Amino acid sequence: MDITEQTPVVTGLEKPFVIGLDLGGTNAVFGVVDQRGQVLATNSIKTQAYKTVDDFVKAGVEALRPLIAKYGGISQFRAMGIGAPNGNFYRGTIEFAPNLSWGHDGVVPLGDMFSEKLGIPVGLTNDANAAAIGEMQYGVARGMKDFIMITLGTGVGSGIVINGQMVYGSDGFAGELGHVVMVRGEKGRSCGCGRTGCLEAYCSATGVARTAREFLKESDEDSLLRELKPAKITSLDVSIAAGRGDALAKRVYEFTGEMLGEACADFATFSSPEAFIFFGGLTKAGDLLMQPIVRSYKEHALEIFKDKPKFLVSSLDDAAAAVLGASAIGWEL
Amino acid sequence: MDITEQTPVVTGLEKPFVIGLDLGGTNAVFGVVDQRGQVLATNSIKTQAYKTVDDFVKAGVEALRPLIAKYGGISQFRAMGIGAPNGNFYRGTIEFAPNLSWGHDGVVPLGDMFSEKLGIPVGLTNDANAAAIGEMQYGVARGMKDFIMITLGTGVGSGIVINGQMVYGSDGFAGELGHVVMVRGEKGRSCGCGRTGCLEAYCSATGVARTAREFLKESDEDSLLRELKPAKITSLDVSIAAGRGDALAKRVYEFTGEMLGEACADFATFSSPEAFIFFGGLTKAGDLLMQPIVRSYKEHALEIFKDKPKFLVSSLDDAAAAVLGASAIGWEL
Repeated sequence: MDITEQTPVVTGLEKPFVIGLDLGGTNAVFGVVDQRGQVLATNSIKTQAYKTVDDFVKAGVEALRPLIAKYGGISQFRAMGIGAPNGNFYRGTIEFAPNLSWGHDGVVPLGDMFSEKLGIPVGLTNDANAAAIGEMQYGVARGMKDFIMITLGTGVGSGIVINGQMVYGSDGFAGELGHVVMVRGEKGRSCGCGRTGCLEAYCSATGVARTAREFLKESDEDSLLRELKPAKITSLDVSIAAGRGDALAKRVYEFTGEMLGEACADFATFSSPEAFIFFGGLTKAGDLLMQPIVRSYKEHALEIFKDKPKFLVSSLDDAAAAVLGASAIGWEL
Repeated sequence: MDITEQTPVVTGLEKPFVIGLDLGGTNAVFGVVDQRGQVLATNSIKTQAYKTVDDFVKAGVEALRPLIAKYGGISQFRAMGIGAPNGNFYRGTIEFAPNLSWGHDGVVPLGDMFSEKLGIPVGLTNDANAAAIGEMQYGVARGMKDFIMITLGTGVGSGIVINGQMVYGSDGFAGELGHVVMVRGEKGRSCGCGRTGCLEAYCSATGVARTAREFLKESDEDSLLRELKPAKITSLDVSIAAGRGDALAKRVYEFTGEMLGEACADFATFSSPEAFIFFGGLTKAGDLLMQPIVRSYKEHALEIFKDKPKFLVSSLDDAAAAVLGASAIGWEL
């Protein structure tokens, strides 16, 4: 457990804190967050170490107990927010999440389960939506009414804000922009969703590694990446090689950014956002990725949208961001 | 002038009527509409018969005078709504509309100009958004909070409703789904927007005629369409031939519907709408078009969205629909 020593900001609100839960495939990280968006304390458990969701919730509440006690007891907490894969905001459920041992074959009412144990309201949405809400509350999207958050991690996720509201759609699952099809027909790469050609198959961390392997196979060009076993190459390796000036690795980022820019040109026709905000591991590549995105967007966008949107990197890209994003849902309940 | 003899529905509202203006490239149709969505009377002028926008507005107000007089004078009118190409809702302007002689090279404050002359509020948006608002007020979208209207006319337009609100985006120009790119790279057809591969280049009325010409060129297959000069073929000819069982013409509609279905699969990832609603001339082809759309959507959609949205044809697809849609903006002001 890692209780940080930040002083909470308390400004007269009756219930000055919220709980955030970032539910990942490996770790479930709980945090206590104040109104300023300071993550005051966190604790985590292993997401998949439990046979049933009941056991998981029980362990989660145990992990939360010392945090809640430290900040004055549950009466000081306004709500809890959960960011989770396949999260349905309307129902507070996780639905058929392929990567959760206790959640892959059904509908798990995780929101209600935590709410019942803790006695506070609990909101739940998918991790990318949580990131977008966090960005709007605490990050570079403060004051923006129309923006699209694109998360570039193991997968590609998105959170869409229009007229200042999260877009949940008719069923709570809107904003799956990682699964627009960028390469149609037989040439499209297979995607984890069972289809082919999705943005995610190219522009996620695994997609970047895959592009690198393809580029290495297609030519004999020298590259630092040849020192690694192809199957072991990660997006981080590509980023490091590109940072050292490796031409092939740089081209991998250009290819990735090029496709993201084309995708954003399509997204602009939908909601004409004020900004595209990128979040997640791949953004660590900085200009290596962002410059090709912007260049490609300008090349491909409809004239009327060409010079309008900003392209930003999340200002919350540290370990606390996911917890912060999840907790932000709590303030909205 | 064509004043219909319908009895207006007046239910105690102080100002029971609105004016709608459907501004097309050829005709500008003005109508008086009551709360039930009855178009009580219409009058029209030629859009391009005027040298300046001032002359156009003057002529429009003249055309409106007898209609306004017949329904009790301007004090009985709540507002006016305009559906126009390149309409900007936020500013009430038409901006760089390529097909308007007096509007192609600048920003025309048409909303303010009519408002000043008439002394009532005037709202303006693009024609597809107007159609979507009309559908929500009077058509098959009544009660829906999340839907996407796709207009299949000379071009392909769209109006997107999320959380019960029209999506205008950061600049008032959101909802240009006719310009998502469906065929990337060199193989894409040239589009009126100056780019290539747009949905509109394939699935508009002109796109359908173009597909027919391509199919005729690619084979020697018998077809009723061979009786026509290729350059003269219209989407209506294709529809008539298909209706008579012409195999090649049917394949043109299958191709068109297939692509629309793929596009809708992408659109679903954005806002997960309750329905896709199709409007405009091409929908007259009925099942010839709608069946391939639905089949293709189910084949291409992400599992989670596959069986959710309805695919509907506008219930307002008659001559009055565009005026009605435009007038509906008036109730929202």
